[in-house]
Amino acid sequence: MVEKAEEFSVGGIRLSACAAGIRYRGRDDLVLMEIAEGGTCAGVFTTNAFCAAPVIVAREHLVSGSPRYLLINSGNANAGTGEPGLRACRESCRFLAAAAGCALNQVLPFSTGVIGQDLPVERIASAVPELIAGLSVDGWERASRAIMTTDTVPKLASRRLDLGGRTVRVTGMAKGSGMIRPDMATMLAYLATDAQVPKALLQACLEQAVAPSFNAITVDGDTSTNDACILVASGQSGVGIADLESGEGRRFAAAVADVCMELARAIIRDGEGATKLVEVAVREATSVEEARAVAYTVAHSPLVKTALFASDPNWGRILAAVGRAPLANLDVNGVRIWLDDVCIVSKGGRDPAYEEAAGQGVMGRPEFQIRIALGRGAAAAKVLTCDFSFDYVKINAEYRS
Amino acid sequence: MVEKAEEFSVGGIRLSACAAGIRYRGRDDLVLMEIAEGGTCAGVFTTNAFCAAPVIVAREHLVSGSPRYLLINSGNANAGTGEPGLRACRESCRFLAAAAGCALNQVLPFSTGVIGQDLPVERIASAVPELIAGLSVDGWERASRAIMTTDTVPKLASRRLDLGGRTVRVTGMAKGSGMIRPDMATMLAYLATDAQVPKALLQACLEQAVAPSFNAITVDGDTSTNDACILVASGQSGVGIADLESGEGRRFAAAVADVCMELARAIIRDGEGATKLVEVAVREATSVEEARAVAYTVAHSPLVKTALFASDPNWGRILAAVGRAPLANLDVNGVRIWLDDVCIVSKGGRDPAYEEAAGQGVMGRPEFQIRIALGRGAAAAKVLTCDFSFDYVKINAEYRS
Repeated sequence: MVEKAEEFSVGGIRLSACAAGIRYRGRDDLVLMEIAEGGTCAGVFTTNAFCAAPVIVAREHLVSGSPRYLLINSGNANAGTGEPGLRACRESCRFLAAAAGCALNQVLPFSTGVIGQDLPVERIASAVPELIAGLSVDGWERASRAIMTTDTVPKLASRRLDLGGRTVRVTGMAKGSGMIRPDMATMLAYLATDAQVPKALLQACLEQAVAPSFNAITVDGDTSTNDACILVASGQSGVGIADLESGEGRRFAAAVADVCMELARAIIRDGEGATKLVEVAVREATSVEEARAVAYTVAHSPLVKTALFASDPNWGRILAAVGRAPLANLDVNGVRIWLDDVCIVSKGGRDPAYEEAAGQGVMGRPEFQIRIALGRGAAAAKVLTCDFSFDYVKINAEYRS
Repeated sequence: MVEKAEEFSVGGIRLSACAAGIRYRGRDDLVLMEIAEGGTCAGVFTTNAFCAAPVIVAREHLVSGSPRYLLINSGNANAGTGEPGLRACRESCRFLAAAAGCALNQVLPFSTGVIGQDLPVERIASAVPELIAGLSVDGWERASRAIMTTDTVPKLASRRLDLGGRTVRVTGMAKGSGMIRPDMATMLAYLATDAQVPKALLQACLEQAVAPSFNAITVDGDTSTNDACILVASGQSGVGIADLESGEGRRFAAAVADVCMELARAIIRDGEGATKLVEVAVREATSVEEARAVAYTVAHSPLVKTALFASDPNWGRILAAVGRAPLANLDVNGVRIWLDDVCIVSKGGRDPAYEEAAGQGVMGRPEFQIRIALGRGAAAAKVLTCDFSFDYVKINAEYRS
């Protein structure tokens, strides 16, 4: 059985956080995660062409080295910084490697915050001794707060499962609230387990878990330059995972998927200015790509999102968004749309049985589904999103990302 | 020479408006435009699959008949209304045809307003006698107000040109403020000229004028179900247009294009909650489609749009939007970005000479350009857009579209 765990610690994984003064004074903004010798690591990264310097370096190091440290700062994205940004990123890794006594390519760097400003390497270097001294298996909660930017709550999730009489843990933390439309990864998420998992298997497990979770959420359609999701396996539980198809392998993969989904939902629930969590579920499409395209068109529509904010069953906007989705030859007579179980659209228009009060009842809920059946195939896809509120505009007119 | 005209009347075109009580009481919401016998008519319509009943009927009548009347209501879109909506639309046309003494397919219907509510045909029928009695060549201003929904200002434009010693006029009116991302046409726009133009030529002239104007604007990326743009030629000036390539043909086409562009800019300037008009100009793309894709990605980014609202030269968001545009193998080192003439990005990051004060200076302007050079080809495209403000959310949380 996979249980929700109340404690987050994972054998072989230590964390620390401190206030390095990267952007603001007096708040934690630098995190170090240490992976015990012999651990494995998998990662997925943003597909944004303007990816940040740390994304480039972390990708390189993940291929060439055996990661021992993840060095994560908030307050500065080190994106759009060109060649000097790359140099600053490598220099931070070098300071850490020297102090910790590991190779340069055993450090994976990550940054989140304002785009286009120089990374203050000297402040990171000054904080390194304190970071190393502070490492602890109980560091997850403090670390999860230190990586926040416009997030209003820290995001942590954990699962405990029994495999062959031994306990395995999977814990993860994530940050993200705006610039959220991950594509192969979300803003920043770090998962760790004490299972022993070969690198290729760990990568497969991560990719499988990310597809329906971090890769199926959107706040504003803006894919970040810094997205990264990392899964680390320390092996300290002594439990080895040899495949993802056996009973044990499936249960382990389910625990990883569960943690990803809980964190992904937490990101949308904490979406900038969000008041609602809405799942757009599309089925009867000719392909998964088509189902995803329709789901994202609805989930990104500013008119749909402001109607969600108003709790107004303004279903004409959902219908208009489906109608402009990039599908060839959509026969609108085959389309049906529901708010949870209330059918609002059938045969190209308002369902004859639809009553406004029923739609209103669903739209008032803090969480609900927009279900769309296209009537032209058997493929399906789901996307999680939130509403657009006054606060979204306020946060993004005042904050620099 | 093509002159801006202060008077809007066009020989052979009469208009009237009245308050039919379609949604609100006491405001004009029904318009009739009469085309003199022998005139020609061209139109382009929305590509939204859930197109409104009047779009279906107007398309049919444009093919089968010689239009004499355009019947336009605001307050109700007659979209998402299925088969009953189509019947209601045809019935309105029938009432008008009977009263005016023309064939059913000589009436083109248009609707704008709330999606998904039944069209009150009897109110339209009751208003028909008053509409016909009120027809006048001076009806443009009143008609342009009657077609408004969330628009805050009426949109009218006119040009006068001298062709072979005779004066030709081109006048147009448009409505639109939200649900604006026209694709083959915009919300509602009606142009008329007193030149004599064969139907096929008129259609070519309209399509050519619409491409860089109505088809290159966006408020919120939401393509309406009711978009239509109509160009009518009464022939009453006695001036015939035989082609679009001769000196006279080009000047006539330029006048039509000018009116379209002026109306398109007026729609963006009156975008829901808009405080700024911004042109996104992309060049050095491998194709026009690619240039348009990048321009729309930037123009639709909620993060870019809220930064525009804040007058914050938050160029990292522009760079992030370019980076997530659907281009294969974008080399970010070739990309340069400017705010008007201020270079903000070069070689994958902030331009070395960029100073915040200069960016701030441009962002404070009510109108400016975001210029993007991709460094990979010779194609270009431009898109006009506006910012996202508190008022956009307010308008769309409170109004039903």
